[in-house]
Order: sequence, then C-alpha cells, then structure tokens
Amino acid sequence: MLLGVDYYPEQWPSHMLEADMDRILELGCNVIRIGEFAWCRMEPVENQYDFSYFDGVIAMARKKGLQVILGTPTATPPAWLIRKHPDILSQFEDGTPRAFGGRHVSCYSSVPYRAHCAQIITHLAEHYKNEPAIAAWQIDNELGHEGSDQCWCPRCRAAFHNFLKEKFNGDIQALNQTYGTVFWSQEYDRFEDIPLPSPTITTHNPALRLDWERFCSENLRSFAAFQADLLREIIPGAVVIHDFPGGGLSKHVSYADLAACLDRVAYNNYPVWGGQKEPLPPSEIAFGLDYIRGLKGENFWITEAIMGAQGHDITGFLPRPNQAKLWSWQAMAHGCDGLMYFRYRGATKGAEQFCYGLLDADNIPRRRFLEAQSFFREVRPYEEALSTPVRSEAAILYDYDALASFRIQRQSILLNCQAEMKRLHAVFFQAGQSVDVIPASRDFSRYKLVLAPNMIVTDPDFAARLKAFVAAGGVAVVTYRTAVKDRDNNLVFGKTIPVDLGDLLGLYVEESESLQESDCIPIVGETGGGSAGVFRDMIVPQGAQVLWRYDDPFYRQYAAITRNPYGQGIAYYLGTAPDQTVLEQVLTEAMARADMERLDLPQGVESMLRGEGDCRVRILLNHNDVSVHALGQALDPFQVKILPL
Amino acid sequence: MLLGVDYYPEQWPSHMLEADMDRILELGCNVIRIGEFAWCRMEPVENQYDFSYFDGVIAMARKKGLQVILGTPTATPPAWLIRKHPDILSQFEDGTPRAFGGRHVSCYSSVPYRAHCAQIITHLAEHYKNEPAIAAWQIDNELGHEGSDQCWCPRCRAAFHNFLKEKFNGDIQALNQTYGTVFWSQEYDRFEDIPLPSPTITTHNPALRLDWERFCSENLRSFAAFQADLLREIIPGAVVIHDFPGGGLSKHVSYADLAACLDRVAYNNYPVWGGQKEPLPPSEIAFGLDYIRGLKGENFWITEAIMGAQGHDITGFLPRPNQAKLWSWQAMAHGCDGLMYFRYRGATKGAEQFCYGLLDADNIPRRRFLEAQSFFREVRPYEEALSTPVRSEAAILYDYDALASFRIQRQSILLNCQAEMKRLHAVFFQAGQSVDVIPASRDFSRYKLVLAPNMIVTDPDFAARLKAFVAAGGVAVVTYRTAVKDRDNNLVFGKTIPVDLGDLLGLYVEESESLQESDCIPIVGETGGGSAGVFRDMIVPQGAQVLWRYDDPFYRQYAAITRNPYGQGIAYYLGTAPDQTVLEQVLTEAMARADMERLDLPQGVESMLRGEGDCRVRILLNHNDVSVHALGQALDPFQVKILPL
Amino acid sequence: MLLGVDYYPEQWPSHMLEADMDRILELGCNVIRIGEFAWCRMEPVENQYDFSYFDGVIAMARKKGLQVILGTPTATPPAWLIRKHPDILSQFEDGTPRAFGGRHVSCYSSVPYRAHCAQIITHLAEHYKNEPAIAAWQIDNELGHEGSDQCWCPRCRAAFHNFLKEKFNGDIQALNQTYGTVFWSQEYDRFEDIPLPSPTITTHNPALRLDWERFCSENLRSFAAFQADLLREIIPGAVVIHDFPGGGLSKHVSYADLAACLDRVAYNNYPVWGGQKEPLPPSEIAFGLDYIRGLKGENFWITEAIMGAQGHDITGFLPRPNQAKLWSWQAMAHGCDGLMYFRYRGATKGAEQFCYGLLDADNIPRRRFLEAQSFFREVRPYEEALSTPVRSEAAILYDYDALASFRIQRQSILLNCQAEMKRLHAVFFQAGQSVDVIPASRDFSRYKLVLAPNMIVTDPDFAARLKAFVAAGGVAVVTYRTAVKDRDNNLVFGKTIPVDLGDLLGLYVEESESLQESDCIPIVGETGGGSAGVFRDMIVPQGAQVLWRYDDPFYRQYAAITRNPYGQGIAYYLGTAPDQTVLEQVLTEAMARADMERLDLPQGVESMLRGEGDCRVRILLNHNDVSVHALGQALDPFQVKILPL
Repeated sequence: MLLGVDYYPEQWPSHMLEADMDRILELGCNVIRIGEFAWCRMEPVENQYDFSYFDGVIAMARKKGLQVILGTPTATPPAWLIRKHPDILSQFEDGTPRAFGGRHVSCYSSVPYRAHCAQIITHLAEHYKNEPAIAAWQIDNELGHEGSDQCWCPRCRAAFHNFLKEKFNGDIQALNQTYGTVFWSQEYDRFEDIPLPSPTITTHNPALRLDWERFCSENLRSFAAFQADLLREIIPGAVVIHDFPGGGLSKHVSYADLAACLDRVAYNNYPVWGGQKEPLPPSEIAFGLDYIRGLKGENFWITEAIMGAQGHDITGFLPRPNQAKLWSWQAMAHGCDGLMYFRYRGATKGAEQFCYGLLDADNIPRRRFLEAQSFFREVRPYEEALSTPVRSEAAILYDYDALASFRIQRQSILLNCQAEMKRLHAVFFQAGQSVDVIPASRDFSRYKLVLAPNMIVTDPDFAARLKAFVAAGGVAVVTYRTAVKDRDNNLVFGKTIPVDLGDLLGLYVEESESLQESDCIPIVGETGGGSAGVFRDMIVPQGAQVLWRYDDPFYRQYAAITRNPYGQGIAYYLGTAPDQTVLEQVLTEAMARADMERLDLPQGVESMLRGEGDCRVRILLNHNDVSVHALGQALDPFQVKILPL
Repeated sequence: MLLGVDYYPEQWPSHMLEADMDRILELGCNVIRIGEFAWCRMEPVENQYDFSYFDGVIAMARKKGLQVILGTPTATPPAWLIRKHPDILSQFEDGTPRAFGGRHVSCYSSVPYRAHCAQIITHLAEHYKNEPAIAAWQIDNELGHEGSDQCWCPRCRAAFHNFLKEKFNGDIQALNQTYGTVFWSQEYDRFEDIPLPSPTITTHNPALRLDWERFCSENLRSFAAFQADLLREIIPGAVVIHDFPGGGLSKHVSYADLAACLDRVAYNNYPVWGGQKEPLPPSEIAFGLDYIRGLKGENFWITEAIMGAQGHDITGFLPRPNQAKLWSWQAMAHGCDGLMYFRYRGATKGAEQFCYGLLDADNIPRRRFLEAQSFFREVRPYEEALSTPVRSEAAILYDYDALASFRIQRQSILLNCQAEMKRLHAVFFQAGQSVDVIPASRDFSRYKLVLAPNMIVTDPDFAARLKAFVAAGGVAVVTYRTAVKDRDNNLVFGKTIPVDLGDLLGLYVEESESLQESDCIPIVGETGGGSAGVFRDMIVPQGAQVLWRYDDPFYRQYAAITRNPYGQGIAYYLGTAPDQTVLEQVLTEAMARADMERLDLPQGVESMLRGEGDCRVRILLNHNDVSVHALGQALDPFQVKILPL
Repeated sequence: MLLGVDYYPEQWPSHMLEADMDRILELGCNVIRIGEFAWCRMEPVENQYDFSYFDGVIAMARKKGLQVILGTPTATPPAWLIRKHPDILSQFEDGTPRAFGGRHVSCYSSVPYRAHCAQIITHLAEHYKNEPAIAAWQIDNELGHEGSDQCWCPRCRAAFHNFLKEKFNGDIQALNQTYGTVFWSQEYDRFEDIPLPSPTITTHNPALRLDWERFCSENLRSFAAFQADLLREIIPGAVVIHDFPGGGLSKHVSYADLAACLDRVAYNNYPVWGGQKEPLPPSEIAFGLDYIRGLKGENFWITEAIMGAQGHDITGFLPRPNQAKLWSWQAMAHGCDGLMYFRYRGATKGAEQFCYGLLDADNIPRRRFLEAQSFFREVRPYEEALSTPVRSEAAILYDYDALASFRIQRQSILLNCQAEMKRLHAVFFQAGQSVDVIPASRDFSRYKLVLAPNMIVTDPDFAARLKAFVAAGGVAVVTYRTAVKDRDNNLVFGKTIPVDLGDLLGLYVEESESLQESDCIPIVGETGGGSAGVFRDMIVPQGAQVLWRYDDPFYRQYAAITRNPYGQGIAYYLGTAPDQTVLEQVLTEAMARADMERLDLPQGVESMLRGEGDCRVRILLNHNDVSVHALGQALDPFQVKILPL
C-alpha cells in the first residue's frame, strides 16, 4: 500500500533534501510524488533537457527506500515556450487570451503545445525508463479543472470543424438535418462557417452545443491518451495514472472516457476549500469518492489528501483535530488503497502559500504532521482488506450527454442534476449502503437497485438495458426529465415522454412545469401530505400504481410518484423532486423491494463494509464533532473504528 | 377576424403539410403566419432565389381556404452571407462580435446587410405580389429585442457621426455648445472624434448619450421603414405589419416611431416567460396591451399568443387550464382583433424546443389544442364588437427621451419609470377604467384625465399642451422628476423646477432627495399618516393646496402631494412615490374630479367595455385561480364572461 | 485662511463672470479654485496655447481681491490629442481601451501623453509665473480615482518590465529567486516574458502581484512628481498641491508616497455620495480626515467640501440643514485650515449635473448658499487656533504593501483591513481621542499608543522600531495577520508567526483559521463571554497574559487576546476580530495603560482639541439629528460649539 506525501524538492534548497526525506520516512511514508509542474527544471531552455536535478532526488529516494510517482510536467509549459508560440495560450469566451502566470493556460488544440509535450515526455520517459524506484507515472495534473476544459480560440474552432467533419463524414447536409438548422435559418453549406457557441443574441442550437461539449471532452481525452500511449510505448508496463480534481460531473470533459486510457485513477480529495465556512457534508464527500471509484469501476489512489486549511486567495475552515484523519479513513473505506498528503511542507512562495501542508514555513512538526503519522501507522495493518474491491448493491447512473444537456438548457433555475444525484445518494449513505456512481453505458445488470436521475438524453440501447434489468428482477428508480431527448439533444418526434420507457414505468407524461422553487407544491400519498418542487411532470398512469399525487388545484388528477411492476422487478418514477421525508420513504421502500439491508445509523455516522473472506471489516466513522453511539459502539468526535466481522 | 397559428412548415417533412393544414382548420383557424426566419429556404445560395417551397405551402393554404401572413426573413441572415461579409455581425459593448448562431446578430448600420435585405425582400415581394392568399406582410421579427437594439461596432460609430452631422448641420461648435463639452475638456473639432458611450472611467456626457439613444432608435426605425417602403413600392396596398416584443418602453428604440411606418401593429404577448415562478400580474399584462394599442392609437393583432410554458434555456410557469385562454380574451378586450397562437406545434430541434406550442413532439392534441379551439369558437361571434376602437377616458403619457434620460442617469437606485407607470395604471385597472398608454407627443386633449409620470425631459410645446388641457377642464396628474431637463438632457439655466409648469401646478421645488428605498419616509395628510419613498421633491406651494406633506424632521414645511385648480381643470403633483393606500386615495379623488366612474371590482377581476351602438358588451375576466363574485356575476377560476349591455 | 469655492467660469457665458465674483465675495470667500479640466480652453489646437480666457478670469479675481488656486488640466486630455495618439487611452483588464468621454482615461506610461502634459504645464506656468493672485497650483485632479490607478495596456507591460529590471538590477535570476517562480514552472529567462497579472486560470504569483501594485503606485507617483518638479523649476516657491479623493487606502497607489512631492495635501471630502441612503458614520468621516492629515503629517486643505446631494448617475442622501456645515467644522477640527465648496453653481451640462453646488441652475441663493455663508463667517475668528498642528497621542499604522497583500490574497471573505482600522479608530473617536493614521514607515516613537492592525507584510526594521517603542514605555496593539509575510509577499522560511514579534508579544501562533463570518465563535475572558470572527490565530502564550481565550470545542487551550509587558511598555495582541463590546474593553484598558484620557461622550458627539497656548479650544460637534447634552453643553441637531479652554 503506497502511503506518502506530495513533495516538491525543487522548491527548497538542495541541502534540505536528505533531512526532508528522513523526516518523510519518520512520518511513515513509502512513496513521494514529484515532478508535476517542473517543466522548467527539466528543460530550462528549448531542447536542452536536463534531468540531473531529479536524478539526485530520485537517487536519494531510492537510497532511503522511498518509491516515486513521477509526473509529466505538461500542466505548466514554460515561459520560453509561450514566448516562441504565444498562441499556445487558450482564450476566454470573448477571445481574450488567458495570461501566462496561472496553470493550464495552454490550448489543447495547439499543435506546437502538443509537439513540445511529446518531446518533454519522450525525453523524460527515455531517461527514467529503467528507474526501479518509479512506482507510477502521473500524466499532467487535474486536467480540465478551473475552467481549463474550454478554450474559445480560432484553433479550437478549426479543430471543432474537423471534429464535426469526421462525425458527419464530411456531409454538411447530415449536420443540417441532425441539428435542424432550418430553425432560424442556420443552414450551413460548409463546416468552416459553424460558430463556436460563444456569446450571441439569445442562445445557440442545442445540438450544436452538445457537439461542442463532446468536442471539448474529446480534446482533453485525446491529450491524456496521447501521453499515456507515449509513456507505454517507451516504458512497457508503466503504471499510468492521472490525478482528478473534484466536481467531475460538471466538467466539460467526460472523466470516465479519460479514465479509460489510464491504468489507475487517482483523486485529489478536498472536503473543504477556500471560502467555505464548513466542509462538505459527509455524504457528499462519500459521493465524490464513489464517483471517482466508478470512473473505472476499480479501487483508486488519493494523490492529494489534506490535513490543513486550503485555498488560493481565500482560505477556509481549518479541519478540526482528527477530522482530516477521518477523511483519510473515509477515502480508504470507499476504495482508496494508496494515499499521499498534499503536501509535505507548504510553499513559502507562489500561488499556493495558503494551501497548508503537513509542515509550515517554520518547519516544525506539530498537530498535522503527527496526525498524518498516526494515520499511516494505523491504516497499514488493514492493507489486505482495503485492497479488495468495494461491493455495492446499488448504482447511480449518469450520462455525459445528459449532464451536458442541462448545462445547455437548465430548464429550471434549480434543476441541478448533480445535486439531485447527491440527494439520492445521501439516503443510501444514511442507510449504511454503498453506492456505485457509474456511467449509464456501464453494465449495471448485477446490481439490486439502479437509480437513473434526470437522464434527459437517452437512447434505445439504454432503454432496452434498463428494461432487461427490471424484467430480470431489478429495482429501478427513474426521475423526472428522463428520456426526453435523443442523442442529438433534440426532442423525439412522434413519441410521448418518457420516450421508450412508458411501458417499463406504466405511464406517460402529459405536461411538465418548471417550478423555480423547492418544496413549493403540495403532494399527497397514503401516509399523508408532503411537498415537492424544482420541476414536475403531470403523470397519467397507464398501469402504474400512484404512490403520491399532486394536491394543488388543477392538477389533482395527475400522479407525482409511481411504482410499476415489470417482469420480475419494479420500476419507480419520481415525476418531481419530493421533500426529504417523502424521498426517504420512497427510497426506503425501493431498498426493501430490492432486498437491501438498512442500518439504523445516527446522523453523521457512516458505515462501510470492506474486505473479503477472513479479513472482512466494518469501518465505522463518526463525522460529528461530538461523541455518539452507533451500532453499539461509543465513538468520540471524528473517531473511526475498524470492527472485524 | 383573423384567427390562426404560427406555422413553420419548413421545419417538418413535406408529407406532413396537408394533414397539418387540415388540423389547423379543425382548430378553427383562417390564417397561418409563415416565412419569418426562413431566408435559407428562399435564397439557399447567394442570388439564387427559390420560392418553390413556399409556393407549395401557400398553394396548399389557398386550397384549404387559409389566409397567409408572410414574413420577411431578415431577422436571421444566412451563414453564407456572414461568411462573405463577417462584419455584418454586430458587436457587444467591448467590441466582441456577436456570434452567428442566435438571431438578430446583424448590424443595422451594415451596408451589405441592408443591400442583401433589399434583394431578398424585392424578390420575395415580386414573386408573391399577386398572391391573393396573403393577408399581410410582416417585416422581420421583434426588432430590437434581446439586446439587438444596440451595436458598438466601428460602422455604427461612423453612422452615429453622420447622424450627428446631420442633426447639427455639420456645425461641430453647435454640438459642443449643446452638449456643454467644455465640461471635462471634451470639446470636439470634428465629428469623427466623438466616441460611442462605451465603458470608460466614470460616465459619458448625458446629452451625447441621449443622442446615442436617438441614433439607435433611428437606425432601427429606418430599417423598418426601408422594408415597409420597399414592400409598398412593389405591392401597392400591401398590409405591412411588425410583431413587437414585450418591454417596449425599455428598448433603445422608440416603438411608436417605428410603428408609424406600419399599417398595423402586431404584438407577441408573453404573460409568462422562462424562469418566472408566476405570470405577470393581470394589470401588467393589460398595461402591455394598452401600450401596444397606443403605438398607433389603433386596434392591433396578437401574432404570438401562448398556450403552454415558454422559455429558451429555462422554462417557467405552466399556464393553468383556461388561464392562457383568459389571456387571449384579455387581449381582445384591449383592442386585439386578430390572434395567432405561437405555435401550431413545438419545435423538436433548435433553440426553442421549450417554447411549447399547441401540439407537442408526439403530435397528439391535448389540453392546449382543445383550449385554443374553444377560444376560436367562442370569440368569433363577437367580431363586430371587437372590431370597434377602444374608448379610454384616461391616458398615461410617456416620452422616449425622458425614458432614455433615466437609463442614462437613473438618479435613484429604485427610480424605475416604467414601474411607476404600471403602479399608476393598476389603480385604473382596479377601478375598471381603460387607460391609453401613449407618447406625450400625441394629442391628448380629448381625455378626461392625463397622467404624466416622471417626464424628466420636456419642452415648451408639451408644457403648453398640458396647460391648455387643464385650462379646458382636464385633470392632470404629474409626478416628481417631471420638467427637470430640456430636450438635450441638460438642466435648464435660469429656471426653477418644474420648468415652465410652476403656474400650472402652483408650486416650485426647492430641493430634491434620492431615497434609495420605498416607503421609507413618513408623510401626513388630512386623512392621517402614510409613507413615501424612491425620491422626493421639497415642494413650496405657490397657490397649490397641500394634500400631503412630509412628516420627518427638517422637512415638515414642505408639501409632498398637491392639488392646484387651473382654469377649468385641476393639476395634481406627486412630489414623491407614496405608498399604495395614499396613491389610490389621490388617484380616486382625481378620477372623481374628472367625472370618471369607479367600479367596485374584487382583486384580480378585470372589466373592459367594448363595442358601439347595439353591440356593446362588458368583458368580465377573472384572473384569479379561485371562484369570485363580481358585478353580480359568479366567475369560475380564469372564467371570462361577455355581458351584453 | 483660504475660504472659497470651486468655480468653473468656462462653463458659463462670459457676461456672468463679474456678477458671479461679486456674489462669491458676498458669500465670504477669498479664493476660487479654477482651471482643472480646462485643457481645451488653454490649448484648443495642438501647440496653439491661448490663455486669454483665463487671463480675463484671473484679472477679474485680482481686481475683486480674490486669490486663485490654478489647476493643471491634465486629468482630461483633449479629443485632438486622442485622435493623434489613440493609444494614450488606457485599457481595461481584458485589453479593451477605455473610451474617450470620461476622465482620467489616459495611460500614465504613455510617452506622448506625458510629453503633451509637460508642454501644457510649461506654457501655463511660464504664462502665470508672475501672477500675484495665484495662491497655489493644483496638479491634475484626484489621481488614481475611479479605477484610473490601473491600466493593462502593452505600454504599461513594457514599463512594468523596465520597473522590474531596475528593481532587480537586470538580474532575471534574482527575480526568479525572489518570486519563487520554480512554483508552477514560471521561471523567466528574460524580463520581457513577464505577464501582467490579468485574468488567467487560477491566480498569479503573489510576489509578482505585489510588484505590480508597486509599479502602479510608482507610475502615478512619478507622474505627480514630474508635474510638481516642472512647476517648481519654472516658478521657484510655487505652492504645489493635489486634491486627493476618498478611499485612499484601497487605491493601487500609495498616496503617502505621492504626497511627498507636494507642498500641501488637499482633500475632496464627500461624506455622502450617489446611491448612499445615509452619510458615512461620523467616525468614518473623521478617519478619512485623519488619514489625509497623515499623508504628510501636516494640516491640509479641503478643496471640495459639499453642501448638497451628490452623484453621477445616481444621486443620494440630501444633507440635512446644518449637517454639511457640521462636516465643514469637522474638517477644520481635524486639521483643515483652508476650505472650498464644490461648487459655486452646479453644472447644467455634462456628467455632473447631479452634483449639487451652492447654487442651482435657477441661480437663486437658498439654503445651501446661506449655510456656506454662515460657515465662512463663523469660522474665520478661529483662524489662529485652526492653524496649529493637531496633536494626537495615538496612531494607527498602515503599510501600502500589507494593504496590497490583502487585495492580492484576501484570505477571509470578510477580511477588510480598512474596515478593521475604522473599527479601532471608532473606539478612540468615541473616547474623544484624536488618532493619527500614518504609514508604518513614519517615526511613531512620540506617541503613547500605537495600533498595528493586520500588518501582514513587515520587515525587521519595523519589528525593531515597534519593539523599541514598547521597550521605551509605549503601548502597542497588534492584530491577527501581522508579521506573516516578508516584503516580497512570501512566507518566511524557518520562522514561526508572528515573525520576529514573538518576544514582543510573548506568544506564537500555532494554526490559523479563516472564518468567513463575524461574531461566529465564542470567546471567554475574566469578565464573561463574548464572540469573535473574520479570522483567528490559535495563540500559544510564551509569557503573555491571556485576556480572552477561545471557547469552542477543540480550541479552548488557545488564547485569543493577550497582553505582554515588554520593557517599560505593554504589547497587546488580538488574534481575532472580537465583538464590539470586547474590542472596546480591550482598547479602553490599553488607553488607560497608555495614560490617555477617555471622555464620556454620547453616541454621535465628537470632541477635538485644537490650538496652542492662549488660543486653545474644544470643538464639540453633534452629528445626531436630535438634540443631546454632552460635556455639560446642550447641543441642537448638527450643532457645533467652540469652547475656549
């Protein structure tokens, strides 16, 4: 099990190297992550590659018994490269170039940028291809983060044209037909006239915008794949990783597609960031981990775990004693089997001076150093259990096109598909049930229960797989705005919504309303009254049982939430976003129908089962800042207990 | 009476045409509106005009007995034209071109744009000049909407210079004198140096900014006039219309000026739009209709009436059953005598997929289709009454320059001249009194009562007409910030405000205060205490009777609201925005003095009188979603009753 | 004592000149300020200088016995100059040029701009060098105001490069070392590649950003110095002033540095501005005056005092009768010994029509004229007392680099260093104690008490001076985030914070937390409980006495506010921003320890002592709009009493 720190030796005087490494060992580490962002140190002048600095670092690591994760430095091209090719700089939506001085300011459509990346990676890989200390290669850093997933430059526009030419086999009329460009007289006679969806009067064609989202994604995916392929070509057997940032579902890139070219997914896990008064709720941190595990459907590493307060210009909440350690344990519980803290010692210069590391500028070990040390010491005995796969009985499905469709047309001011997913996920979290968060294209037939929230863009293949899943005894929970659009982001002529899912769900939707508020309309069910909001479908049951119906004037004849037996399984439909009580009631019933166990956990207490055979354990985590009792255990604030089963 | 739908046959397969038209007839229509936005279909390649598609559509319409309103397609120039002349694209304030892909992205100062418009219109008109099915020609679509009333490109700057040269007869010193450019050393020695009022440090010269507002208006007006003139030149007797969007008073174009070149005004009436939790209040919808009727002072058409929820990226409130039908009736009550629903069937592709039509993508007639059908059936018998002019005893006056002056210098954060107009209007609405909303330049001598709210820019002619009106027995209600500036948007040297209206109102204003809050200061009158806000004038009566005075320290000696007999009439002055109770009290008194009847209507119930001689009716509309009694009638939710008089 | 008005004769017909001057005399004036913004009137065509207009004005003034303050007109270069050199226009952050039409739209790095400024000033000074009526020369107007302190044009980028070359003696490696550009691979091999800190992905290097702040400051300072030097070269003995706007501490220019090249500081004092519902609190107006006095540590003039409501596009609160007069007295109490009202008569044209002067457009003297007249009459007898220096026993220190550091990295959303300074200042205001607000580089050894709030950037020299001050018996109050960074805006390796102040304060800071809220955490002291917020240091006392400690879980072992005897003095440390009660308690104690008197004044009553020897007076000001008793005196609303001592 790799346990370590992110270390940036180039930021410190050389004479500190050995003492630092000795203390890294004292901390309990067996690995350091180095190299990302260090292009200048490797190629200070064009074509003059100089790895002597890192040779020394790696030699010292090897001598001390530390393994190394080595990063390609492509996230920060050097100033000399921008000088030579100023148009490497990516552009904001209004065409203003992004200034050199941040990170990820390069355009992924830039030919000279990719060429120079190929050169530096080639030289780096050739130089270290036989280095035994290198455990893995990390490509770039947090690709697509902080707005770097979109560029509005002329090169990107040309690349978008090529993307479209390829997609439509050069047939511009096929594009016109697909997009329906007859609307607003936007018929093109050549690909070169197609605009980027930059600011205009009103808004752009939704099908064009979805293709733009796909282009952005492919542009980044291909950049990652090019690095991975190059590394593997030079170093057969290289373990290629990438460290993903949080918020992946809202990026203009499909991280699941990007992950497909990696050997292992890594995650930079920030439960709290600058400006936040308090950390994310425990279930949202868990959701992020489950999403990361779902990218490949495998265990993963944490390349950046935190111990201190974080932030660029604004810092935030200081994790309480043992709270960040709890987060490390939580990561392990959700499938992490290798973890590095960001960072060994905080920077004294540059943009991240307020991203606190294990050590401060005064270099004196205190609470954060000791807490990390204790985590490493305590986690190591559980390596076997933590190396086994996470087994979940439920899955939440997502779809890049559907998510993008909501970015393009949000429909309700409150319609936040990710927030809905997290709300669903939290009910399972509270019940002690692990959930996989996976792309809808993944095979989901082995689960007991599957949730398809707001899957607005769907296709016949998905509909067929969902029906087969339920027919074979599965429980499906489908929510409003599912199966409204086709893969081109268009409405489906001649079909009533939910398109192709009417028989599975036993209903059709007669009208819909965007509500712009939560919990603003009354609903009524067998157990009494409730409320709902965000959006609502006026459901006409065609066989489905009505669990909840609307209770405001004019709409009492329509169902709000239904249940439909289908084959050997059951399909639920939530035509609106119900209040928390109703949601829990419906999902609890669905879990029961799926034969899933529901733990009785106090608020803020998490339970995860890990391990196989003899080494099964329950990991019990108290996210509360007070003591609680759970499952017969007394838990101190932020305490974690590992209970053998 | 034209009753119909907006139909975009080019968006559907040809084989659907006849079935669509048959169902349009079944709906009760006698007209379809087609052609707008279809430039590509008419001129797919430069100079290759091809009207065969629309020939087929119109022939089918003629065969079925449907009339046609045919639009010029200039709102959406084709991609090939932008390719040939990229600088047709208009620009945002920072000089960024608006992307092709929306609508109205062309610059009205562009010579090639106007030239190509002339060509397409000429060919279209020549082709259809003898077509008997064409009932009217619509030019463009919603000119000036969505920010298309301003462009900041170099062509517009040059055109602005020409506009100024003409206005000042080429005399730059006249401009310097008028603008007072000696302030901040902005004296020009040639017109070419004059800037657009784009972002700067602080703010631009208010007189220059008013001329810019006039230029923007004239640029759009001349574009409309050029189209109307061209159509009439080719087709003598053509009925030329334009469909105006909502929010006309806040546009950078005078719709009253634009309407002057039309044969008939049309209105796209959206009582609710994307993102709104609920529709506009009934009196605001009425205000919009009264404003549209006032553009020419004649009856009008609704070219886009709604039945379903609307919105581009965000949709909104779903009109309740019979609510949209009520809005159609309301339009008729206010002078609409021809109405088309937007749109026959909602688009499945393009930017307006969430503008719901009478039919959805599944093409199955349901509530919205049937409701529209019932409206057409029920309204037709009242054609005679609805074809007569609307008779109002009161008018609200507005002035393009005055409205623009507040856009330029808002003076109080809350000073929203239109909101004030709507507040005044709502009191008359509640009393069952029809109000005309008309330009101040229009003759208003025939009214019993005239309201001049916030008419900050005035001139001696207006002052004289207002005095003559009151002297002859009229009742005038004038509010704060009236007659503060001259036509150049400058203060008037040597005059005390209200300039030239002191004798009419019997007062002068000693100081003024911008209050930044509503209802924040106490006022007191004979009937007790009240509050006021937004702005206030410290009124020194010179003969006027004090109805209300301020009641806060330091200002008790100043009047807030006054009444002054003048000739045979009476002039009220509201030196501040009083609270609702005080406003109603003052206006009720003014109505009484003007010998106007005041109905006792429940909240949300509207009454309009229409027709002449034997066909007079009262149209009684219940805008509430509950049943009410009004004028002895029981009204269901959203019910409309037509009561013969 | 200069008492007068700002007068813009060029904005009025010439025939009004003499009558205006006569009435200015009637007002009680002995000076007029003229000439600023009048470039066009002096050089209507390039190189054609024509001072005949101002010759007439000054001759008339001389004849009437009025002195003149003459402004250089450089704030508003003429249109012909922009036509000739369009790139004089400064640029917004995205590279869009600022439009001609406002003021201060010129780039201070522009060579042709400076050259033309030199020409006009040279001609102006040569022309008037022997004019006896000229009492002082004002350079430009409100330099750096309204965003004119930053320009993002290519010339500024080149000038920034030169600034850096000079700073680092041409050694780019020294820059790399200082900035720590190894972080994110930003190592430069030449100065020309260094970006402006314009928008990028994430954020720029904090050391680079601080140097950019210094460059911006130097660019403006050198522009002021060039004007002052030129004037003095031509007119030995000229009194050179500049009129500073409010908000100096948040400008991207050090006004203290700029003031160093002046003979006298002037201030444009706006206690209320457009859009404000009410004026600044009295203590904040006082803070502004104390800051202005601190620029040179000398008495100053008010070049723009107000009487009426003010604002460009939005106007605001109307000063109550006698309130603006009170503000004039307050200015005198704080060291103003010459005052002009802005402006004699309000403009009827141009951008400032709603900046009300003493007279309105109708030219009829009313309340504002008479109030100014009474002020001039009443203040003149106190000239002797008001000409003596203000004596303060306490000082608040600020540092341009520290203020800039917070602009660069705010750290807490609420961390507003100026607001903190004003909070501290207000406690002294309430106690009737005058406070000097001065740069930390100024000698502060003579004070009894010194406050160093949030001095995040410090250096060994400051630390040494602060220690010497306390050691010699002074009382120091130091607050959180002091001594965290070095002069390069970097953390200090190997040092625990507060860097180099641990022994003075008797403590070190173990961890810190950014709180994002006020009064959100409990603290406890001997006198009970309180609250604190914004930010907090976890203080480990090393000898200091704990006055308050944190009282929330996990942090009870850390001190929040401490007191440490050091030498013959005492040093307080506020590790957080306590609530108002606690703050007053701590500062009251500190005042007592410093042997400072504390008056018992009602809220809103101010007391200042002025004069020396026989002419000492207490100026007692009632800022309340109600009557109060204070120090045995009955005070009417806004009344000022001058009490001989």
